Amino acid sequence: MKSTHHYCVIMAGGIGSRFWPLSRVEKPKQFVDALGIGKTFIQLTYERFARFIPAKNFLVMTGENYKDMVLEQLPALSPDQVLTEPCRRNTAPCVAYAMYKLRQMDPEAVAVVTPSDQYIGNDEAFLRVMRGCMDFARERPVLLTIGISPTYPATGYGYIQARREEGQDFTPVMRFKEKPDSRTAMTYLSEGNYYWNSGMFVWSVGAIIEALRDHLPEVATRFESVGMAYNTPMERALVNQAFTDCPSISIDYGVMEKSDRVYVRCTNDLAWSDVGSWGALYGLLEKDIRENSASGASRVNLTDSNHNLIKVTNPKKQVVIDGLSGFLVADTDDVLMICPLSDENRIKAVIEKASSKD
Amino acid sequence: MKSTHHYCVIMAGGIGSRFWPLSRVEKPKQFVDALGIGKTFIQLTYERFARFIPAKNFLVMTGENYKDMVLEQLPALSPDQVLTEPCRRNTAPCVAYAMYKLRQMDPEAVAVVTPSDQYIGNDEAFLRVMRGCMDFARERPVLLTIGISPTYPATGYGYIQARREEGQDFTPVMRFKEKPDSRTAMTYLSEGNYYWNSGMFVWSVGAIIEALRDHLPEVATRFESVGMAYNTPMERALVNQAFTDCPSISIDYGVMEKSDRVYVRCTNDLAWSDVGSWGALYGLLEKDIRENSASGASRVNLTDSNHNLIKVTNPKKQVVIDGLSGFLVADTDDVLMICPLSDENRIKAVIEKASSKD
Repeated sequence: MKSTHHYCVIMAGGIGSRFWPLSRVEKPKQFVDALGIGKTFIQLTYERFARFIPAKNFLVMTGENYKDMVLEQLPALSPDQVLTEPCRRNTAPCVAYAMYKLRQMDPEAVAVVTPSDQYIGNDEAFLRVMRGCMDFARERPVLLTIGISPTYPATGYGYIQARREEGQDFTPVMRFKEKPDSRTAMTYLSEGNYYWNSGMFVWSVGAIIEALRDHLPEVATRFESVGMAYNTPMERALVNQAFTDCPSISIDYGVMEKSDRVYVRCTNDLAWSDVGSWGALYGLLEKDIRENSASGASRVNLTDSNHNLIKVTNPKKQVVIDGLSGFLVADTDDVLMICPLSDENRIKAVIEKASSKD
Repeated sequence: MKSTHHYCVIMAGGIGSRFWPLSRVEKPKQFVDALGIGKTFIQLTYERFARFIPAKNFLVMTGENYKDMVLEQLPALSPDQVLTEPCRRNTAPCVAYAMYKLRQMDPEAVAVVTPSDQYIGNDEAFLRVMRGCMDFARERPVLLTIGISPTYPATGYGYIQARREEGQDFTPVMRFKEKPDSRTAMTYLSEGNYYWNSGMFVWSVGAIIEALRDHLPEVATRFESVGMAYNTPMERALVNQAFTDCPSISIDYGVMEKSDRVYVRCTNDLAWSDVGSWGALYGLLEKDIRENSASGASRVNLTDSNHNLIKVTNPKKQVVIDGLSGFLVADTDDVLMICPLSDENRIKAVIEKASSKD
């Protein structure tokens, strides 16, 4: 049963280019079918939550230029469910906007806030975990985060240090940690009470608005002042002004790290990934017996080639590769990129240089 | 001065796929700008000969489906200068057709017969050599070939064994040799009187028709029988019948190897290549300081990459390559091919497999 008080806010404002040339400023990662399964990340995200949240209870936060793409990819949503930021102000103003608007719609709302571009391998576990979180947050004025049991000393994720409490699903958070260096990440792993910060939050609108007032009054007051105009024709203009006046600050830094009501739901069975690099994507993809993953082409001939990730966006294209191993080959209408798959920093540098306009 | 009795017959019937995916059955090598200089091989061939042969004295022999492409690429020619073969019968019937037709036009014609897809680096030397050949052939009933002094023991060319005659430009041919194995090729080189068979011939129509009658009567009689119909509206139908009735045989095997009036003009300064492989093409191209040759793309970013041949047919495409060395990267509208550049046989095998329709 889907609760009418349950809401989902999908944060889809990212303009990342980690999957350049597959993702671009004009079509960021969340709108791309990087897994080659016929669904984009935002579609997968929507479907995951739509199992327990009614379609009309979704909000998508995105940039003005992506609104049409959201509506095209999520046809179950109406235009007034896609909210746009007039300018980029990081996540806190965005969350504040959504929460004040939700409170005006439903003061009993319990909301999950989620990135739009993650991968979850175990949908059943996800459903179970999220339902537990919604219940937990409905009954208490807490700010709940989802923490992923680390499987390796990742340096690409932030960490959540939880209080050591055996046998509890929900644990108070001691501290949030920035992306660590490799050595620190290994310490975290051996400590045992550190979790990857998934970027998903669950809370009642009452709890998050109280926390915003306490810790980010310069954001809270601006969205408070929109008042009764939420969900009226006046909302747009007033919210745009509020955004413009807000400082740029993340919800993690502005609220989560400061509140003493933050809990983490630790889990190890979501098969979660933020798919933050070509290498991470390669790890998730189905591969042939020689560890090649090729998708998007009409025909692929591989000879003496192993451990390659091959992504083609023209379904009429044939790919012929001989004697190439450990490479990323990404071919779009206007870019052909070939580089070693294993070194994330190198790919990043290559992308930075190649995607600059000069 | 261009002699009105000098003619050039360009053989453009090849359907080779050595430069697949750049060249295709639909657009064979001679019609491709493989050198990336804005001119195709047949255009370069035409221009080379047009320096001493009038435009109206050219004939191009090609397949029916390539006629429009020839006329498009050689706008100086009129449609009746482009002759088509109704079926593939190797070179002897094709040469016979052109020569009988020429004789009907001009019994004093001296003709050079040339492939349409070769590279000549030294146009001045070429002009000098060819003029000498035309003069030599006008005055004697000889069949003249152009022999290239070998610079390495190539196994991809046929060889011409010349009689040892010091200080002569034109030497009688002792024997034609098929493409040798590597060991034999080295013997040829050390012998000193072996030359690469360029596939270019020079002769008067009288000499070649006499030789055809002597050595290939089954071909000669068929084109002889077209008689007065050459250069009339009846030519087409009668020639098509002649072709169909002819055996499939090469002019080399059918005439050149049998006649005792064959001479070779040996030369070492044409900078000649038949550009018979991707590797041969790479050798001819301009390269950057790291021995990369990239052409056809709007922008190329190369990092830690050496000795690559990169060919792109979409001028709006950007190429980004990191950590790749010694590879051929060929990108067309419908094929992306990546394979080691050094191993010709390997490329051949890959192309064969990839270009098959199954």
